[in-house]
Amino acid sequence: MTAGTDSLTLPRADDFHVHLRQDNMMKRVVPRLRGGGIGRCLVMPNVQPPVTTTTDAIAYRDSLKAIDPRVEYLMTLYLTPALSPNDIRGAAEAGITGVKLYPRGVTTHSDEGIDDLEPLMPVFAAMEEEGVVLEVHPESPSDPDRDVCIMNAEEDFLPKIGHVHATFPGLRIVVEHVTTAGAVAFVERLGDTVAATVTAHHLDLIIDDWAGRNHNYCKPVAKYPHDRDALRRVVRDGHPSFFLGSDSAPHPRQAKECASGCAGVFTSPLLLAYIADTFERLDMLDRLESFVSEYGRQFYELPPSSESVTITRRKQVVPDAYGSAVPYRAGETLNWSISPV
Amino acid sequence: MTAGTDSLTLPRADDFHVHLRQDNMMKRVVPRLRGGGIGRCLVMPNVQPPVTTTTDAIAYRDSLKAIDPRVEYLMTLYLTPALSPNDIRGAAEAGITGVKLYPRGVTTHSDEGIDDLEPLMPVFAAMEEEGVVLEVHPESPSDPDRDVCIMNAEEDFLPKIGHVHATFPGLRIVVEHVTTAGAVAFVERLGDTVAATVTAHHLDLIIDDWAGRNHNYCKPVAKYPHDRDALRRVVRDGHPSFFLGSDSAPHPRQAKECASGCAGVFTSPLLLAYIADTFERLDMLDRLESFVSEYGRQFYELPPSSESVTITRRKQVVPDAYGSAVPYRAGETLNWSISPV
Repeated sequence: MTAGTDSLTLPRADDFHVHLRQDNMMKRVVPRLRGGGIGRCLVMPNVQPPVTTTTDAIAYRDSLKAIDPRVEYLMTLYLTPALSPNDIRGAAEAGITGVKLYPRGVTTHSDEGIDDLEPLMPVFAAMEEEGVVLEVHPESPSDPDRDVCIMNAEEDFLPKIGHVHATFPGLRIVVEHVTTAGAVAFVERLGDTVAATVTAHHLDLIIDDWAGRNHNYCKPVAKYPHDRDALRRVVRDGHPSFFLGSDSAPHPRQAKECASGCAGVFTSPLLLAYIADTFERLDMLDRLESFVSEYGRQFYELPPSSESVTITRRKQVVPDAYGSAVPYRAGETLNWSISPV
Repeated sequence: MTAGTDSLTLPRADDFHVHLRQDNMMKRVVPRLRGGGIGRCLVMPNVQPPVTTTTDAIAYRDSLKAIDPRVEYLMTLYLTPALSPNDIRGAAEAGITGVKLYPRGVTTHSDEGIDDLEPLMPVFAAMEEEGVVLEVHPESPSDPDRDVCIMNAEEDFLPKIGHVHATFPGLRIVVEHVTTAGAVAFVERLGDTVAATVTAHHLDLIIDDWAGRNHNYCKPVAKYPHDRDALRRVVRDGHPSFFLGSDSAPHPRQAKECASGCAGVFTSPLLLAYIADTFERLDMLDRLESFVSEYGRQFYELPPSSESVTITRRKQVVPDAYGSAVPYRAGETLNWSISPV
């Protein structure tokens, strides 16, 4: 697991944040998960219409299982003002893992999201009691009058999470896809009920990398070098509150290479190879296993993966596309490959 | 010229920063200048190969005049390490207006740009003496090790301009297409030999507007709301050191709607209409005339335009394209129209 290692066998990765879409895109993406080294994943509910009920979530999981039953799908509900404490109890009983909070209008399919957290306090209380995890997309809607834009929307939102945490200290909260030094410091400061997911691409990218280059454009956007440095540092430190959530989010090529591109970076098919490539470059391969298959499942109180996966230092060129979806770093060469599914 | 005015006649606009390209794109763009309300423009030299000599600049001007002789073309040289004080004297004699400094690698066709200003001091001395204006693209190359990226590259570069100004206080310097509160404050602080151009689009846009939307992507990029506020404020104040330079920069559609889009916003064909629309929205139509046809030519020591142009409050929809080039705000409705050429 150190520099110079030529292969590495570890428990299959847990991806605690992935968009598996629906219909044709779902059929293209789901069969690629195992090839990316993934054994278990937390599935985002922002399909159309969003997954707002336990019944919907179970139906969604069934459709995923029908495509590849070898992957374990952990399901989430999309938090709307209609969700009740009773719904939470039903969800917990049915094995739903989490509830995802989208502030309204901040990313793909967030039109049904939340404006005001206060009315949700009884729901959060029920989640704390039932052990249902709250996953948060931490961005305020842009508001020029308050100088809030996509560069500072994440840090602007953090106090709201702090308030929920202070009110329900036993509620497990995941600050999703952190991108700023401020968010890293925020999560580091709190106790072991607050964690953060880190994507593969945010360990690589800064704002320059997505300017004009829509395949690297995602929400939240990659930011300053010092923000990327903070992410790299906390992962290198092996802080157990920071673990993999890829936020892999495929779109058809024509929805990216156009006048108004959709947000999302597509990493699932080669997820562990991207991460190994980056971790090796940053001389922190020894942190890979805990980042992808230990800290996250510990936070989520899940058993270790029963299956292993091997990654090998063998160059591969990232394909131009999987179906209509262009993967991260298409056409570039990665130093690592993932053993056959 | 106040809110409620239905038409406004003013001297034809001076655009003190425009990219007129070459070959087919030039032939498409130049005939659109007058329709945009422009009578005189300062032509950027970053064609390929760049315009580095007076001979080249005059040939370039001739090719522009051959397309539309009614426009007055003020010419610039591309500053390379090869430019000598003697070249400056020859340029001044031939009526070249300015010399454009591109730091290497910061925007379209800046590969021949400058790394180090110190060796250029004799050139700047000659420019001061001859009254040749120094136009500066004020961005440092991104350098993650110093936390420099496209969001702070402008402010990072300003001290270098300050140093040149302090050394040659009589040298007229234009800080081109300012985008940050820091650059606005920097120019405000200095005397009347340092000015700034302001584009039409940077009075409108923030970072959110170009994220994923490549037709709004330009270098320097639009930044925070408070940066846009600073631009709006200084123009509303009627500060005479801030005047129009559109940085209109057409690219073929396929060079924008693609995986790696070129930087540049195309505004020439409707320039005054965009500006009138924005100024009316900001309730500062009374500042329009001085911004587009007074402060700039005073700084450049040019006579007033001898021709007038009329803009009228008459709605128009921005065309989807002019040839292959997609204009700013394509498909949107502007409240103002420019009288026939």
